[in-house]
This record gives sequence, C-alpha cells and structure tokens, in this order.
Amino acid sequence: MNSLNRVFEYELPTEICFGLKSLQKLPEKVEKYNGSRIFVISDPGVKDAGILEKVTDQLSNIPHEEFWDIEREPDVKTIRKIQDKINDFNADLVIGVGGGSAQDAAKAVAIMATNEGDITEYAGLDKVPNAGLPTICIPTTAGTGSEATIWTVMSDKENNKKFGVGGKLIAPTVALCDPELTVSLPASITASTGVDALTHALESFVNKATQPISEALSRESMRLISKSLRQAVHQGDNIEARYDMLLGSTIAATAFNPTRLGLAHALCMPLGGKFKVPHGTANAILLPQVMKYNLAGNAERYKEIAEIFGENTENLPLHEAAELSVKAIRKLNKDVGIPTGLSEFGVTENDLDYIAEGAIGSDNVDVNPKKPIIEDLKQIVRNSL
Amino acid sequence: MNSLNRVFEYELPTEICFGLKSLQKLPEKVEKYNGSRIFVISDPGVKDAGILEKVTDQLSNIPHEEFWDIEREPDVKTIRKIQDKINDFNADLVIGVGGGSAQDAAKAVAIMATNEGDITEYAGLDKVPNAGLPTICIPTTAGTGSEATIWTVMSDKENNKKFGVGGKLIAPTVALCDPELTVSLPASITASTGVDALTHALESFVNKATQPISEALSRESMRLISKSLRQAVHQGDNIEARYDMLLGSTIAATAFNPTRLGLAHALCMPLGGKFKVPHGTANAILLPQVMKYNLAGNAERYKEIAEIFGENTENLPLHEAAELSVKAIRKLNKDVGIPTGLSEFGVTENDLDYIAEGAIGSDNVDVNPKKPIIEDLKQIVRNSL
Ligand SMILES: [Fe+2]
Ligand SMILES: [Fe+2]
Repeated sequence: MNSLNRVFEYELPTEICFGLKSLQKLPEKVEKYNGSRIFVISDPGVKDAGILEKVTDQLSNIPHEEFWDIEREPDVKTIRKIQDKINDFNADLVIGVGGGSAQDAAKAVAIMATNEGDITEYAGLDKVPNAGLPTICIPTTAGTGSEATIWTVMSDKENNKKFGVGGKLIAPTVALCDPELTVSLPASITASTGVDALTHALESFVNKATQPISEALSRESMRLISKSLRQAVHQGDNIEARYDMLLGSTIAATAFNPTRLGLAHALCMPLGGKFKVPHGTANAILLPQVMKYNLAGNAERYKEIAEIFGENTENLPLHEAAELSVKAIRKLNKDVGIPTGLSEFGVTENDLDYIAEGAIGSDNVDVNPKKPIIEDLKQIVRNSL
Repeated sequence: MNSLNRVFEYELPTEICFGLKSLQKLPEKVEKYNGSRIFVISDPGVKDAGILEKVTDQLSNIPHEEFWDIEREPDVKTIRKIQDKINDFNADLVIGVGGGSAQDAAKAVAIMATNEGDITEYAGLDKVPNAGLPTICIPTTAGTGSEATIWTVMSDKENNKKFGVGGKLIAPTVALCDPELTVSLPASITASTGVDALTHALESFVNKATQPISEALSRESMRLISKSLRQAVHQGDNIEARYDMLLGSTIAATAFNPTRLGLAHALCMPLGGKFKVPHGTANAILLPQVMKYNLAGNAERYKEIAEIFGENTENLPLHEAAELSVKAIRKLNKDVGIPTGLSEFGVTENDLDYIAEGAIGSDNVDVNPKKPIIEDLKQIVRNSL
C-alpha cells in the first residue's frame, strides 16, 4: 500500500511511561528532568474529581503552583495569562493533567517560556525555534493523545478560529499514563473521546502519508479500541477496558505524529471554533460519512479496518468488504451513544459553506486518501446533520 | 498477556529515515546535526561492494576521513585505535556504514569521544555519563538492527569475551536505511542476518519484559520477515523483498530496545566469542531449540507466531498450535540454507559447560519466558550441535 518510492521518517520525541499506579513515578520523572519549581495546569473537572490532588500529592516536597481553571478548547488569552504566572513563579518544569485542553495548554506555555513573542505567531509546523521547559503530560481521558503528540491546539475566540502549533519541540518530554485516572470519566465523554482516539488511528492508517511504523501502531490502537471501548463506556470501573482504551489512545498518537489525519479532523476545526461541537463528538459524527466518501481511495485498508472490528469479509469483493468498515463504525457509535447528528449542535444547511471553507485549507485535507472539492466537504457535513 | 500491574516504559531515541534513495538525505541529516568534520567507519566488504564510496560521494563538500578496516565482531583494540584517529581528526559527527560491526564501532567511538577512560569500563546498561557525538548509522545488512538499538557489542579477544555497552545515549542519532544498499549482500549472509532480525522480534515478543508497544512492532517485523526473507535470499535483486527485510530488521530493533531478548541471544555470546560462530548463524541454529524449550512459558504467543508464519492452527489445542511455530522456523531455516548444526563450527559435547556457563549470567536469560538452569542451556546447545 505504502509506496516503495517514498522516503519516510519516524521519530518519537516523547518518553512513554504507562501502567496502573504509574502516577507514583511522577517524582522520579520530575527529578530526571531536574524539576525544582513545578507549574501544574489542570481543569475544574479534574480538580473536582480529586485527580489534581492525587498529582500534587506526589509533589509534596517540591515547590509547585497550580492553575486549574483551563476551559475547554483553551483560548490564547488563557495561555497568555498562564505564561505570566509561570514567569512570576519562575517554573522550570510544567505538568499538564487533564484532557486535551490542560495538556495542550501545558505544552503551549512550556514553549512560550523560552520563545519570544505571542503563541499565535507560531501557528503551523516547525515554527518554534527553541526547546521549551521540560513537560510531563498526564492524561485523564483516553482520546486526544496529547500526551504523545507534537501538536498543541488552541482557540482564538476573538477571531472565531482554532489553530495548532506543531513540531518535535512541542512534544511532551514524558507521557505519564495511569489508566486509573480515567475511571471516573462519565460515559458520554468516555464515548466521544474514545471515538476521537479511534479516528486518530483510522485516519492515519488510510491516509496518503502513512508509513509502515505508523501502520503497525494504528493497527494495534484500533484493535485495542475495538476490543474495549464499549465496555469502558458501559462499565466505567472496568480497569482492563480503561487500560486498553488509554493504551489505544496513546499508541494512536505515536502513529499519527508523522502522518497527520484526514477529513474528519479537518472539518472538526470550524465545527469546534464556531459551533462549539466537542472535538470527539464532531469526529464521531463525521467519521462514518468521511469513511463512506473515502472508501474508493484506499479500499484495501478499509477492508482491514472492517476485519479489525470483527466484520466477516470472507468471499466478499473488495469494495463490499471495505464498506463493512462503515457499518462497523456506525454500530460502534450507536452502541456507545454518540449523538446522531450535528443539528443537535445547531448546525444547519446554511452553515455548510462556512464549515467547508474553514476545512478545505487544512493540512489534514492534503493527506486524505481522496482529494475533495468544496462540494464534497459540504456533502459530508450535510449527511452528518 | 502483558501483566496489567506492571508499569512499562517506551522510548525511541533514534530518528528513523527509511526508503529507497534515502541515502540522498545524508547531507541534510549531517547539516541538521551540525556535522562539519565527519568520520566514516566501514568494513572491507562494504568498501569492495562500492557502498562506502556511495556514502562518501554524498559528503563531497564536507571534510571527512574514513576507516574501513573494521573486522567482524570488532575488538576493543580496534575501537581504541579509531578513537585516536577521531581525536586527531577532530571529528564532530560519526557515520557507521555496514553490518553490525561497523555500526557498533561507530556508536562506541562516538561515545568515547566525550567520555573518559576505556570502553571496557562502560560494559552494561546506562553506565555512560555523557552524550556522544551525533551518529548516523547506515545499515548494509537486514539483521542486526544496530541502526536503531541502544546497544553496541564488542569482542575483548585478549580475554575471550564479548560484551555490550547499552543505554539511551548509545542509540544512533539517525538511522538512515536505504534498502538498495542491501541488494549486493550474498545469499548466505542475507539468510543468517535475516534470521537474526527475526530472532530479535521473536525473542522480544515472547519474553517477560515485553509490553504492548514492542509487541505491535514485533508483530509487524515478523510479518515482514515471514513474507520476504525467502525471496530476499533467493532473488537478491528483488527490491521489494529487500525493502521488507530491512524494514523488518529496523522495526525489530525498535521493539526489543526496552525488552531485551532471550536464550538464543544469551547463548550467542560465548559461541561468538570463543568459537567465532557468526552471530546470525548461531541465532538461527539455536532458535528452534530455544523455542521448543520455551513453548510452555508463553504458548499463546508461540501460537500467534505460528499464525504469522502461515501455519493453520484452527481447531488445534493451544500447545499443539504453539508447537507449529517451531516447525515454521525449522522450515524457514531449511529454505534459506542455514547450516544444520553448531558442530560445523567445531563445537562439541565437551564445550557445553563452557557455553552454558558463559550464557547463564546474561540479562537476556532473566527475561526469557522460562527460567533455565545450566542443564537446560546445555541441552539446548546439545540439541543444536
Ligand atoms: Fe482528535
Ligand atoms: Fe542479534
């Protein structure tokens, strides 16, 4: 599938530490990266669930300060505010504990501690010149994979935009992944973040930039998520299911770092920016329609996805086997209670132009297995209303 | 399979650049790591095949010096000699081009350029304090995986020993993997080095230290080798087979870095040190006997190996399914012309004590799926004579 004539690159800038009670390794990791003044970033949900305290308990002997008021899809204004606090505190290591927002904020401020100017100036890939402060990311959802990605994504609400800052220097130094921290996550967020993780593995697996190392990791991620997402949603305290989901999410991040994603993630940006559709939910709603559109671009891979999700493809022509992957994801969405359409978030036929135009320029479109025109994107969103 | 209650760590300190004509990326990589005076290490076979020249052609504008007289299983005396040359030349980047020996030598001297004392003082894991010079490894065999491992292995012929120096700081900075450079490799070396690569993936996959990220990578490596080793041996110019084999070998290295290996690699050390059995050949001869001994320690995994190698395990009891993996590897060895026994290298019944005692203390024994006593090791070697 992968072209023999393309040179590919693979690197993993983040050190992964994974397992039950791995949170207890936090002091060891802080010491390894010479943290003596720690700044911890989190969100109100994580604080209320008592998880932030579990983290700071591990730091009892080390001077540390907290900012736990990160909003969903953090705004650049919040990033600037934390920057000032970090400078005042003179922090030398940053910890992000939470879903994508807290981790992304940690990655952003770690970079801004050592680079001039404003974060908005660094939008895009490899624009940041200096390595940031050492960063330890501790995920509390199995979804964004932010703990191991080279991206941090923010809102610029003043300009109704979302943007990403990416590159090797943005990757966390350590991903500290303890599945116990995801156990208290409500079913609906477990579902939407879980399908987000799946979308990472899947969009990377079928896209034009994929490559053998990413493929192997995507397969493993999809296998884990196929096996355990339903159970993680419906039996939140099933630790094995939580383990598999967090592992699937972190592995997906190691897969898509060098490949980017696809149309679902491209369309998510305007849907998140203007319509505030949560990232995972938007992906989950869009994914079956994106797959249906993409099938002919990489049928072999969609067939393999169908098989990973337990569909019987025996004796079927390739295209029919590939189509079973769409059926499998629809069924998964239904089983885990994903909202049925974007209209639940107030998106209407009148918004299609705005959304398609906000997506078409994304790098995630360039790598998609089929090259869409604006009308294709509008049709995908129309079918997802 | 993997215990839920064990915290695992995964990191990949080497940047991988892989593909046909990736050698043309060498100047870019040298520039990225600020190489201005390059020391290139290789061996006579690589020079005779014209590969060394292909490499230095890429360095035409950059001051560089060569040492191409690395012997198989390089001796510490050779390492010391190159160290002096590197100091005299004032090199700031090291390139190793060849099989395991040239690459291992490059990794060793890169470290010794920035650390005091003698290389023998650093035997073991994580003993080296300072990061070495940037190192670019260019494999010409699909086997050792040295281009992406955290180990360098040397002989100390004066003391009839082989030893390894390991750790994150030993890993090459860049693995530059161009399958075209492996096309001229003779069939017999393609076979033995290829089974060495397989042994890396396989021993890591079944051992007690394995972990989900390594497992996914091992599976992919075994799949590639199962698909393409025979063809790479018998149709040396089949570039797709060469591509798969080099990829399988490099991916195996990324799998076993954090897990170590098993009994075949433990027994290889005395067999290579005293009896000069080439590393890949020793592994290939030992592997079926080691697998037979290990089966009961991880039958599920051996069953999966059987399936990756195309055996039909349907409706078989687990242990019988697992046994098919031994059959599959025996058949592979036969098809690619691996020597049938260690007696071809002068090893006799009288040497069993020496070999078993030289292996039993290895870290590779500690992680093996079954814990052997001396008599077990002797029996494995006896069965491999
Ligand atoms: Fe996402
Ligand atoms: Fe080996």
